[in-house]
Amino acid sequence: MPKILLMNAGSSSVKWKLFELTDESVVAKGLVERMLAKGSKFEIKYGTEVYQETTDNLTYERAAEMILEKLTALKITPLADIVCVGHRVVFGGQTFKKATRVDAEVSAQILALSDHAPLHNPMEAKYIELMQQVLPDVPQYAVFDSQFFTQMPEENAIFSLPYELTKKYEIRRYGEHGISHEYLVHKAAQILDRPLEELKLITLHLGSGSSVSATKDGKAFASSMGFTPLTGLTMGTRAGDVDPSLVPFLMEKLSLSATGVLELFNEKSGLLGLSGYSDDMRDIKEKSATDAQCRLALDVYENKIVGYTGSYFAQLGGADVLVFAGGIGENNAWLRQDICARLACLGVELDQTLNEQGQEGVISTSASKVKVLLLPTNEELAMVQQIKAQLEK
Amino acid sequence: MPKILLMNAGSSSVKWKLFELTDESVVAKGLVERMLAKGSKFEIKYGTEVYQETTDNLTYERAAEMILEKLTALKITPLADIVCVGHRVVFGGQTFKKATRVDAEVSAQILALSDHAPLHNPMEAKYIELMQQVLPDVPQYAVFDSQFFTQMPEENAIFSLPYELTKKYEIRRYGEHGISHEYLVHKAAQILDRPLEELKLITLHLGSGSSVSATKDGKAFASSMGFTPLTGLTMGTRAGDVDPSLVPFLMEKLSLSATGVLELFNEKSGLLGLSGYSDDMRDIKEKSATDAQCRLALDVYENKIVGYTGSYFAQLGGADVLVFAGGIGENNAWLRQDICARLACLGVELDQTLNEQGQEGVISTSASKVKVLLLPTNEELAMVQQIKAQLEK
Repeated sequence: MPKILLMNAGSSSVKWKLFELTDESVVAKGLVERMLAKGSKFEIKYGTEVYQETTDNLTYERAAEMILEKLTALKITPLADIVCVGHRVVFGGQTFKKATRVDAEVSAQILALSDHAPLHNPMEAKYIELMQQVLPDVPQYAVFDSQFFTQMPEENAIFSLPYELTKKYEIRRYGEHGISHEYLVHKAAQILDRPLEELKLITLHLGSGSSVSATKDGKAFASSMGFTPLTGLTMGTRAGDVDPSLVPFLMEKLSLSATGVLELFNEKSGLLGLSGYSDDMRDIKEKSATDAQCRLALDVYENKIVGYTGSYFAQLGGADVLVFAGGIGENNAWLRQDICARLACLGVELDQTLNEQGQEGVISTSASKVKVLLLPTNEELAMVQQIKAQLEK
Repeated sequence: MPKILLMNAGSSSVKWKLFELTDESVVAKGLVERMLAKGSKFEIKYGTEVYQETTDNLTYERAAEMILEKLTALKITPLADIVCVGHRVVFGGQTFKKATRVDAEVSAQILALSDHAPLHNPMEAKYIELMQQVLPDVPQYAVFDSQFFTQMPEENAIFSLPYELTKKYEIRRYGEHGISHEYLVHKAAQILDRPLEELKLITLHLGSGSSVSATKDGKAFASSMGFTPLTGLTMGTRAGDVDPSLVPFLMEKLSLSATGVLELFNEKSGLLGLSGYSDDMRDIKEKSATDAQCRLALDVYENKIVGYTGSYFAQLGGADVLVFAGGIGENNAWLRQDICARLACLGVELDQTLNEQGQEGVISTSASKVKVLLLPTNEELAMVQQIKAQLEK
């Protein structure tokens, strides 16, 4: 049976999943962590079985080879069944607007775009090269997490900066979690049995990184993410929207470089910074009943979501659909309840029972003017579907 | 008849207005420009008359003396009638929450807050001192442009930064145009004959600097202005909201300091930067029919206003009132029409005839769920009223 192998490479780890091409079911998935360090961990889960191996200083090359060796040795699949390898690539700029078959030029372009995603693009390019070496006859595809947002209307995508700089340095909102947002809008349209092109949707991807996007006419309309993934909502450790004037102010007060201040905004802020306690919503929620700073962190967090939803509702000229997704959006009925209660002014009416049950699907009442959906996001499935669409061409 | 003299000091100019204390009518107003430079201009308008004098290198001290000399010489008022001098002060931080009688300590505090308004507070402190010298027996009051926003709920006022930094350096949204926004909400309540405390209001102060604020329970609820007046809406030359990550990015690309990049955001961006043509809305509008960049500037400008209005509508839990004010808000029926058409999704319905007539008051239909008002702002009158309230205590 033909299969597709999906790779998601990080700076010191790689996650992968093997799918049946036809029915899109998951055959096996694996994780390699702590590469080039003590205690590198290699793991494969398939069916009800788990294979684990711990070694030291596992190299990227060896990890790629091991994945294929074990797929054979554990009789998960003959390598000949792998008809395609897909790679998640964080940043495709305005160059890559869809899942793209990789050749030498595409590889070079992915590397050239590393400026915007220095922790991700180089590793992703590296894994494309490695998989080409171990599976030289298998086509490789790149799916870009930014591609969904390449079609945003210019007035929503750019900042009010000197236009010649905007053009010269391609300064715009590049969005983020695009594979997720694109999956969510298609899934919502499917569940509601409506053509996506006729719907106006607001999708909340709430995880340790969080973003909200608006979709109209079947295309991305707006994203809370900026030139980088710093802006928009309050996140686990990222501040979301901040006055840039604070960069020189804090450089002086804290004797930091500009990059140092940005690290503070990206790594020490958000829920962690507000609460002074944790970047994990479960911790914040638990402590919020007795701790004023955790309560404040929650208030700021919810307030930003309410504000962005209202902003996109107005810019879209109304919304038909509001989607909750991501770890925080999927697992916290109380949060959905808080947010939707405040959005009653936009015609949102949550069905308490459906919300508490927390199953995939509609969780608003039939009277709600905006249909609220709870959708566990599935970025890998979205990647498989996008690559299949390209294979069929 | 007792009178009140209002001073509004800038870096090289001072504007003033003399009011009757009782009926709040304007007796005279004046402007001194280009002080300490060639061609200093001294002007007074009173009744139908104009007095002008041009000289070189007029000092601040001499300008203050001349104002009083001419008030007497032109028989505008005996100095003994001036019972109070009011000063507009841009930044009062969290220290000054209302119009405050100035003593030595208050003067020192105004100077100490110069960090946040380096172009304004020192000059305003200077003029307080000068007027104390020339009118030593007359009480002086400071009215702060930030005071209206000192009561914003914390979750709307702070950024998602490490909380200990927020506290230590008093990092928050300080708002701007507070005297205007406070005037507008009181005026709107008066026109609608409703207690201000019962209304939820969104006020658009649209001038070369622009801000939008939300008011609830009679108090400021939110402001688009940040730690500085950079953020929020697209302005004449200020960018409004920008990803702070662009500070280190542009420092490197343009070989600028962080302060240099902020100057770019404050002085070369906004309508001027987007259009590459002008920071003046009249120019942009005129050229937008034939010039794509001017059209884009307009689209971005309107889009931000629509977005912020929607954001505050949701955060307020609905709005009763939307106010257009400021030079751009007051003088452009087409802009109010564009914005309100997009806000139909929030229940806004403009009365075309009333909007075109452009008179102060309600310009929405009776069916409109949100009452839309056009209100020429009057910051000096607001200052007079605030100072009178303190005098009467």
